[in-house]
Amino acid sequence: MLYARAMRRLWGEFNNRNVSMQVITLLTDFGTGDEYVGAMKGVILSGHPQATIVDISHQIAPQDIEKAAYMIPAYAPCFPAQTVHVVVVDPGVGSDRAILALACDKQIFMGPDNGVLSLILARDTVERIVRVEDRSYFLPDFGATFHGRDIFAPIAAHLSRGLPLTELGPEIQLRQTVRLDLKPPVVDARGRLEGTIIAVDRFGNAITNIDRRALERVSLDPSRQRLKVHVGRYILTGLSRTYADVGQGEPLVLFGSRGYLEIAVNGGDAARVLKLVAGERVWAEAGR
Amino acid sequence: MLYARAMRRLWGEFNNRNVSMQVITLLTDFGTGDEYVGAMKGVILSGHPQATIVDISHQIAPQDIEKAAYMIPAYAPCFPAQTVHVVVVDPGVGSDRAILALACDKQIFMGPDNGVLSLILARDTVERIVRVEDRSYFLPDFGATFHGRDIFAPIAAHLSRGLPLTELGPEIQLRQTVRLDLKPPVVDARGRLEGTIIAVDRFGNAITNIDRRALERVSLDPSRQRLKVHVGRYILTGLSRTYADVGQGEPLVLFGSRGYLEIAVNGGDAARVLKLVAGERVWAEAGR
Amino acid sequence: MLYARAMRRLWGEFNNRNVSMQVITLLTDFGTGDEYVGAMKGVILSGHPQATIVDISHQIAPQDIEKAAYMIPAYAPCFPAQTVHVVVVDPGVGSDRAILALACDKQIFMGPDNGVLSLILARDTVERIVRVEDRSYFLPDFGATFHGRDIFAPIAAHLSRGLPLTELGPEIQLRQTVRLDLKPPVVDARGRLEGTIIAVDRFGNAITNIDRRALERVSLDPSRQRLKVHVGRYILTGLSRTYADVGQGEPLVLFGSRGYLEIAVNGGDAARVLKLVAGERVWAEAGR
Repeated sequence: MLYARAMRRLWGEFNNRNVSMQVITLLTDFGTGDEYVGAMKGVILSGHPQATIVDISHQIAPQDIEKAAYMIPAYAPCFPAQTVHVVVVDPGVGSDRAILALACDKQIFMGPDNGVLSLILARDTVERIVRVEDRSYFLPDFGATFHGRDIFAPIAAHLSRGLPLTELGPEIQLRQTVRLDLKPPVVDARGRLEGTIIAVDRFGNAITNIDRRALERVSLDPSRQRLKVHVGRYILTGLSRTYADVGQGEPLVLFGSRGYLEIAVNGGDAARVLKLVAGERVWAEAGR
Repeated sequence: MLYARAMRRLWGEFNNRNVSMQVITLLTDFGTGDEYVGAMKGVILSGHPQATIVDISHQIAPQDIEKAAYMIPAYAPCFPAQTVHVVVVDPGVGSDRAILALACDKQIFMGPDNGVLSLILARDTVERIVRVEDRSYFLPDFGATFHGRDIFAPIAAHLSRGLPLTELGPEIQLRQTVRLDLKPPVVDARGRLEGTIIAVDRFGNAITNIDRRALERVSLDPSRQRLKVHVGRYILTGLSRTYADVGQGEPLVLFGSRGYLEIAVNGGDAARVLKLVAGERVWAEAGR
Repeated sequence: MLYARAMRRLWGEFNNRNVSMQVITLLTDFGTGDEYVGAMKGVILSGHPQATIVDISHQIAPQDIEKAAYMIPAYAPCFPAQTVHVVVVDPGVGSDRAILALACDKQIFMGPDNGVLSLILARDTVERIVRVEDRSYFLPDFGATFHGRDIFAPIAAHLSRGLPLTELGPEIQLRQTVRLDLKPPVVDARGRLEGTIIAVDRFGNAITNIDRRALERVSLDPSRQRLKVHVGRYILTGLSRTYADVGQGEPLVLFGSRGYLEIAVNGGDAARVLKLVAGERVWAEAGR
């Protein structure tokens, strides 16, 4: 949220010019070894030649809905208003799972109704949720195995050309959507904040789901109190500002680029050194 | 083919507007760890700043001409008319192998004359085949090791700007080109259709070379008869419409996004579970 | 250099038209599995919707500054004038290391002041070097862990829109910058040219730092004398023009696409076959 405001302050004058930007982002589990991403882009460019298509990642592990769900809020606010964010991590392709398109924070998000949009749906700035049903916007003779190409791509092109969301199908309510049970941090019996490692990045940084607001819930202010984080067999004390605040090869805890506590090793791979994996529990408390 | 028609029906009105689209696609075995793809794009953009360049894949195994050959028909029809499809899987770079450029189905295809364009050359809609020879369109002082940058990229830029194919060199006949011996499915002694697994995708789906037309050749109509597929030590019966038609972890056979029979496991990796590899034989027949 | 001249000869007439090209290239160690590259692109497109962003590679091994440094001169000359080349291989992010922006050969280069721009800084065509300090061009409330998104991306957008370099901060001198000790080839006690393998590419080609000019320093003219290269336990004689000059599976030495001697195996992987790794020494001399 803060981030979105920063973007407006930086580029505000240009955004006001109302340039038609027409960015479409793609987040999938398709990999880059097959023709799947290229086929989607061909369909999009056939319908909207001026679209700028940005690959977020196609390396989501097949069907890892949760990983994708957590990534979306980390990149979406960086993009201009009117951007169409397409997410295709879709084990239920061809089944009767619905496809959602929703407007939120002046952008549009589209994905299967399997929870992958959970963190956007959770925002109180969601303006409208639509179930995508009008087949006249699908590829004619669409198949049952590759909705990325046959449904998501043509709809994305239409939306980025300005088609109103409500043309796609009926408006639905939040409670009619599937949402993941993405457990937020909780306060445990000992008064510590218990969170989870939600991702390990390429550098081996372990990203938790604990942000500043969560720390406030246990009245922990790391600018005044010494933070103490328990993870695996380790206890890390102190909050660093950046990696180089500790010696080469030493572990540290900081607020990372997503705004969450991260466990890192300066110049090294924390996940490997400390043997951390996504899904693992971490505890934060005020140290002495 | 059906697919191309579907694209026209979906986007027809816009294509008629004759927007200059200038898409160039790249399929190579260059990987993404070196500067090779970037260098090609720099040359293209130097010559044609408005080109939209789409990466299909750069993960073709070094010099796996056949894999690339089978991929081209799977993505090309998704792209707009006038798209220039560049394929650089080129173990013979710098030798006396020719470079081909051909017009087919309102698009342009370019690749080394080593068989990688076989499945396009096999179409009866090929309009013209040219051997690329006019060095005035190459990078001056071009080298002998990186024709992607020195020849394919500048030619692609020229073609996408509208240079007529015939400017590049002499027109040649189909029989003067190199084509792979891509064995189509055959009917074996027992009356079964014998095909091949031509690719395994990221999800572990094993894609065969058996399409509906091939099944017709053994009078097999899976909408009326029970399909029976033999592969490795397994026999799979029935034709599914989509992955979710069977239980989680169960194997199935369906027509995949390329229009060929695929062997898959719902929510799993068929190639790993059933131990399937590209090149393996499969047999289809009518079951009881 | 020769290469830049070739580009001008090929595209000269179009470059003269002064088309506004606005290409931004990205070379990072971010990988493609996280949202980092996408976040950078979002910020760039928010500030400069018409920018064409080209990924060079995001597969630089975490913090392998030297690998990136050697790649830059291999792709930069392929790009149009005014291109902004952004390099983010930045183990010191958030520390007090500076960020550099420099103008050279009609292009702009930006990277952390950790030596990654060494080979551009070494050119006598550097026009101006600036230390990026004016925070009004950074993302407001920028963080200490992801300068790619918070500083490099907005600055790249500004520069590609035409912001003068000198707006970013004070001009500095070459001697005020950090440069890697990238040892050029030397003449050893036996009069041989001693060089280094600086990279192994996807095909297993081992790229050295020995170019034609270096060979001249030992009065070796491979067009007249028989080249002899020592590497590991092997001695390779002769200079090939291209891979296919030797038999399938045979090793060879040629001038590769970067203009340096490369050790390759025709149709094979030289690094694996000959057990070569980056950093290894090679010696060149005139054979008999």
